[in-house]
Amino acid sequence: MISVEEAQQRIAAAFRPIGTETADLAHLAGRVLAEDVRAQADQPPAAISSMDGCAVRAADGDSPRRLIGEAPAGHPFKGKVGAGEAVRIFTGGVVPDGADAIVIQEEVDREGDTVHFNAGVARAEYIRAAGLDFKAGDVLAPAGKRLTARDLALLAAGDIVSARVRRRPRVAIASIGDELSRPGEPRRPGGIAASSGYGLSAMITAWGGAPCDFGILPDTAQEIATVADVDADMVVTLGGVSVGDHDLVQKALGTRDFTLDFWKVAMRPGKPLIFGRLGTTPLLGMPGNPVSTLVCAILFLRPAVDAMLGVDPGGCSLPARLRCGCRAMTARLKRPLAASDARQSYLRARLSQEAGETWVDAFDLQDSSVLSTLAQADALIVRPPDAPAAKLGDRVEVIPLDGY
Amino acid sequence: MISVEEAQQRIAAAFRPIGTETADLAHLAGRVLAEDVRAQADQPPAAISSMDGCAVRAADGDSPRRLIGEAPAGHPFKGKVGAGEAVRIFTGGVVPDGADAIVIQEEVDREGDTVHFNAGVARAEYIRAAGLDFKAGDVLAPAGKRLTARDLALLAAGDIVSARVRRRPRVAIASIGDELSRPGEPRRPGGIAASSGYGLSAMITAWGGAPCDFGILPDTAQEIATVADVDADMVVTLGGVSVGDHDLVQKALGTRDFTLDFWKVAMRPGKPLIFGRLGTTPLLGMPGNPVSTLVCAILFLRPAVDAMLGVDPGGCSLPARLRCGCRAMTARLKRPLAASDARQSYLRARLSQEAGETWVDAFDLQDSSVLSTLAQADALIVRPPDAPAAKLGDRVEVIPLDGY
Repeated sequence: MISVEEAQQRIAAAFRPIGTETADLAHLAGRVLAEDVRAQADQPPAAISSMDGCAVRAADGDSPRRLIGEAPAGHPFKGKVGAGEAVRIFTGGVVPDGADAIVIQEEVDREGDTVHFNAGVARAEYIRAAGLDFKAGDVLAPAGKRLTARDLALLAAGDIVSARVRRRPRVAIASIGDELSRPGEPRRPGGIAASSGYGLSAMITAWGGAPCDFGILPDTAQEIATVADVDADMVVTLGGVSVGDHDLVQKALGTRDFTLDFWKVAMRPGKPLIFGRLGTTPLLGMPGNPVSTLVCAILFLRPAVDAMLGVDPGGCSLPARLRCGCRAMTARLKRPLAASDARQSYLRARLSQEAGETWVDAFDLQDSSVLSTLAQADALIVRPPDAPAAKLGDRVEVIPLDGY
Repeated sequence: MISVEEAQQRIAAAFRPIGTETADLAHLAGRVLAEDVRAQADQPPAAISSMDGCAVRAADGDSPRRLIGEAPAGHPFKGKVGAGEAVRIFTGGVVPDGADAIVIQEEVDREGDTVHFNAGVARAEYIRAAGLDFKAGDVLAPAGKRLTARDLALLAAGDIVSARVRRRPRVAIASIGDELSRPGEPRRPGGIAASSGYGLSAMITAWGGAPCDFGILPDTAQEIATVADVDADMVVTLGGVSVGDHDLVQKALGTRDFTLDFWKVAMRPGKPLIFGRLGTTPLLGMPGNPVSTLVCAILFLRPAVDAMLGVDPGGCSLPARLRCGCRAMTARLKRPLAASDARQSYLRARLSQEAGETWVDAFDLQDSSVLSTLAQADALIVRPPDAPAAKLGDRVEVIPLDGY
């Protein structure tokens, strides 16, 4: 039995970034860049005014100026501003040749073609220099970044129309168990509806992968062995990894080219996790209980998807790192917790906020078959192995569950 | 000029939940329920074993038992367990009639058809009662909840195959300005690429809306007035809302059936925000600078989309409420901030974590045209009107930007 940390390290070490594809700008949100994206042009492309007003030469001081033209956004003034001259300019307009200061509208009095200024002329105060935001050739977003909505606006400003991204890793999901039927289909005797796969597919999609449903397989070695034929970047099996005669994943895969990396992790829920390689395809065998599956997905599958996407953790925001457990977030206990055993525990819990502090409260029912509390949870409390009892107000480590 | 809070309240008051549609289980992630979803069956449907072992009558104590059959998951034992009898049971198997205790595998010695137990028989310890997770008719997810991946697993377990959700609100986006061209197309003289719309579309999609691109409109009242013809739940214009002669949105819409609710909000960036109604369609007129647009989208458009979706804020997780600014999150300043003026400011900033505390550091360059710092930011610092200078280590309010 290995620790959660060792299992995470072994899994991360087993994946490399996969192939790439080109995606259009409008479809880049959430995609992970395979190469740096560089600006095609300076932004702004020329010095522009940030206000409505008059473009003038600062050297002329407060003296009146003669208006010689206009420079609205998108319509640059073609001449040059000389001594004693001014050009009416609007927000986003190019600062005309010769001008080096903007007098804002509120400080201008106009009489015919002459303008008088109420206040001193401020040099460059309302001028945005060419390249203020970025210059042609600057890296707008680095390889390994998962692009946000804000990145899309930045790329558009840099005249980017498409980018090279990692393709979505295909993750095949096989649900194993004679007791399973699809939701809405007639139940088997004493059976239940297959549920984890729906949650898992939605998580994989949210993380940037492409889930493929391999369906429900009965508890026979022959049927389970068919997962070896799937064309995917990774195979996930749900159920069939425990110790009983009817847990057949290892037995079934032994008939194919399966190499075990590890079996069993010192954690709760999720102990009987299997990781190995089916030919060249990594296989993660998850426990059958839905809470175990979804908690193991957050801890072990998400890093695998990130590794296939080539995500650079240095480019992740702090909230994203807290959410995937890369960085610890703490909260104070609303109620005491008992001492824990040798397995690292993940307790479903609710967060709240009082007087600027974050508090957390574990649900009473932590059975690994109970999905309702997982759906109501907004965090997992992480209890390290052999943690002593914790009292009201103690700080504990939590993984927020927002977003999936 | 009104406050940010008043603007948010006026906008929220102008929207009602829109129509509904039915979506399949596999496509429910991120959708907002229009009605409560209730379980179709008990989960588990019968008492089941949570371990491999023997199902017995507790009343028989530690005496040996005669094995009379098996109960794997999905294959219930059809007979009844009588005095001195046991049924081999597996995780997920239905507890047979007559049995009320499970002796786990590790405590069982088998000799032929007889089993001996090493330890005491624990009544019901490894039995999951019928309906432990939920009972038929229980609300699995309430109306107004935005469904997570975990909810999908729960709904599947409750035999739900589809649900009634709000349709995605259609938000038309028109970019206004003679200086604009599409990314990658030839630039206009002194012009720039239209950028905000790409970020805005990705945000609207992430929030559950359906963005529709109305394209780029030149700075003429006649062209701008065409937005009145769009078929959408809401219209957003980008640019053209400031005070100059070339800012034409109000003038243009005055020729159509436009009712102004408010113009100008005491904030930075984003002061010249317009809100009103075009016929019966709400219209939000955003400033042209991309940072203003995207910050105003987070503060004003996101609540509008949530209101059209009928999102119940009570059902949102704490992280989601922190992210939309419904609840305040605080962080400590890494560097001092100057006193602020009468406008509420939103400063692009980076979060970090030290010794379990969250710190925040504002970028030096806060110009509202500079997208690169918005893309690098992972939070906005909220500076209230007339805030005094803040020093190193002071706590300030922040809105995390994770996820968009």
